[in-house]
Amino acid sequence: MRGTVLYGPRDVRSEERPDPTIIEPTDAIIRLPATCICGSDLWPYRGFDPVTQPAPMGHEYVGIVEEVGSAVRNIKPGQFVVGSFFASDNTCQICRAGYQTSCVNRQPGAPTGAQAEYARIPLADGTLVATPEMPPDDLIPSLLAASDVLGTGWFGAVAAEVGPGKTVAVVGDGAVGLCAVLAARQMGAERIIAMSRHQSRQRLALEFGATDIVTERGDEGVARIKELTEGLGVHSVIEAVGTQEAMMQAIRATRPGGHVGFVGVLHDVAIPGQEYFFSHVHLHGGPAPVRRFLPDLIDLIWNRTIEPGKVFDLTLPLDQVAEGYRAMDERRAIKVLLRP
Amino acid sequence: MRGTVLYGPRDVRSEERPDPTIIEPTDAIIRLPATCICGSDLWPYRGFDPVTQPAPMGHEYVGIVEEVGSAVRNIKPGQFVVGSFFASDNTCQICRAGYQTSCVNRQPGAPTGAQAEYARIPLADGTLVATPEMPPDDLIPSLLAASDVLGTGWFGAVAAEVGPGKTVAVVGDGAVGLCAVLAARQMGAERIIAMSRHQSRQRLALEFGATDIVTERGDEGVARIKELTEGLGVHSVIEAVGTQEAMMQAIRATRPGGHVGFVGVLHDVAIPGQEYFFSHVHLHGGPAPVRRFLPDLIDLIWNRTIEPGKVFDLTLPLDQVAEGYRAMDERRAIKVLLRP
Repeated sequence: MRGTVLYGPRDVRSEERPDPTIIEPTDAIIRLPATCICGSDLWPYRGFDPVTQPAPMGHEYVGIVEEVGSAVRNIKPGQFVVGSFFASDNTCQICRAGYQTSCVNRQPGAPTGAQAEYARIPLADGTLVATPEMPPDDLIPSLLAASDVLGTGWFGAVAAEVGPGKTVAVVGDGAVGLCAVLAARQMGAERIIAMSRHQSRQRLALEFGATDIVTERGDEGVARIKELTEGLGVHSVIEAVGTQEAMMQAIRATRPGGHVGFVGVLHDVAIPGQEYFFSHVHLHGGPAPVRRFLPDLIDLIWNRTIEPGKVFDLTLPLDQVAEGYRAMDERRAIKVLLRP
Repeated sequence: MRGTVLYGPRDVRSEERPDPTIIEPTDAIIRLPATCICGSDLWPYRGFDPVTQPAPMGHEYVGIVEEVGSAVRNIKPGQFVVGSFFASDNTCQICRAGYQTSCVNRQPGAPTGAQAEYARIPLADGTLVATPEMPPDDLIPSLLAASDVLGTGWFGAVAAEVGPGKTVAVVGDGAVGLCAVLAARQMGAERIIAMSRHQSRQRLALEFGATDIVTERGDEGVARIKELTEGLGVHSVIEAVGTQEAMMQAIRATRPGGHVGFVGVLHDVAIPGQEYFFSHVHLHGGPAPVRRFLPDLIDLIWNRTIEPGKVFDLTLPLDQVAEGYRAMDERRAIKVLLRP
């Protein structure tokens, strides 16, 4: 099959790879009608996360089940399924509490790489959620978004305790930040402030439900948020970047008693204790337990209530994946869809 | 009047000071039948917080109202009142959300110092809560505890989302940690693990409702907690120390999706982003909004449901305050009550 392998900084290649096969009796093999590149793939692509050996890439996926292992009970060949970036048993105490990405049996969601024609998915019964029937082609991008960026933005909004009557700010205008805007709108937020300085992203933020755009960053961005909120700060911030600046911007823009939901993988971040102590801000986040939200997200997409697939603004053939990485690296594209 | 002043590291003196008087029309003057020394007073006493000028000490207080300013409406001379370490208007949006210690008009709760015979309390209507009538003398230690250590331990338990069926660990066996044990018991926790290596404190922890004692600290303490919880960690940790070691112990002892409530003032603490990201732990804390809880805490004490005053294991005359500081510094006493 065709697959994608990262060899080192900015060296990503589409190449022939062996078809994945069932290894554990709890595995499934799926065929991917579409796949995509994640903002988090840019960390190793840019060399911030070291690449010690050639790494199969891609962890967002939807697909048609081709084959299941002997211990798989609920997932069946022929179903269309949505998964996410960690495989989970969905039965342990941690899963049952809604933290499937910390499942005691957690594994990579697509160890063979999902920027490929086929993928092996471990713990299929716990990890995969089937759609009601085979989706029409135009729903596939949105279902693919549910697998990662929508599920992650959604978790950010849940972690930030977004709800009716609340004023919400979103730090980060990548696909996750934009999906967080969409999530905040679905959860009934009264006011949604998107922090963005890129026109095309601002436009999509407004389409997804943002009521205000703030172009300033860092302390200036915080000052602008305070101006918009009687000097108090917002009730909820979703932090979808993962840098020190973004995290401090999030904490400082939140009012005492408010909530920061952080979903950008934290890189070289240290939260200063004393400032944080006196902020009175709740913190929660981490790798989004997308599995918790998948049934609801699939419903919302199936009913055409939401269309998160709009985050894909560039579609390429799978074998042009390297150009996709370049487009996202240079911020020419928000998110790239790949078609085998 | 007799008052207490800190001149520098380990130099605390009882001396004659001017009687406080009404300065703002929202002030009240109270007479203190008892006062006490706080664990947090030890930070400047030990020189960890610099003392740049002689500082009147004491911020925990109960008292009989002597006089009120012209703008005070609800608090009246002759009432017995309980306050806390920050004065708040109790009407701003932040107060109404329950974060009175971040009130937009926040002031020190007893700027003239509460280790004294009299104290001036700003924003009296917002800050003070009157008891149903003059309390019997044996309730005074418990009401005094409500003013700070009980209110703080209580907030720690609320911030850690303690509740029925939950397993809770308490890091820190000072008066706040012990009151957090008491709070967790009142909130219906199923299992309460007190982390303590001091016999007298362990005894009080058990009396307050602890079900288990863990004497190990740091990573060993975490390992012991994991052993007690099927390898998962507890649902809730109350962190009542404020050091890096205690904070990391708290985060590491909590299961994914669980909650840390931190109430020890954080000193030289930096929370490492990446470890925290993958912990999936909720963090909340800061200066306890004691005012939020005072009406309920006073009820529980008045009805003799709880007796937090047991944290006082040494009573001294007010003018022997220096010996009180020494006793707490050397951990000969958990908490010192001072009688004018």
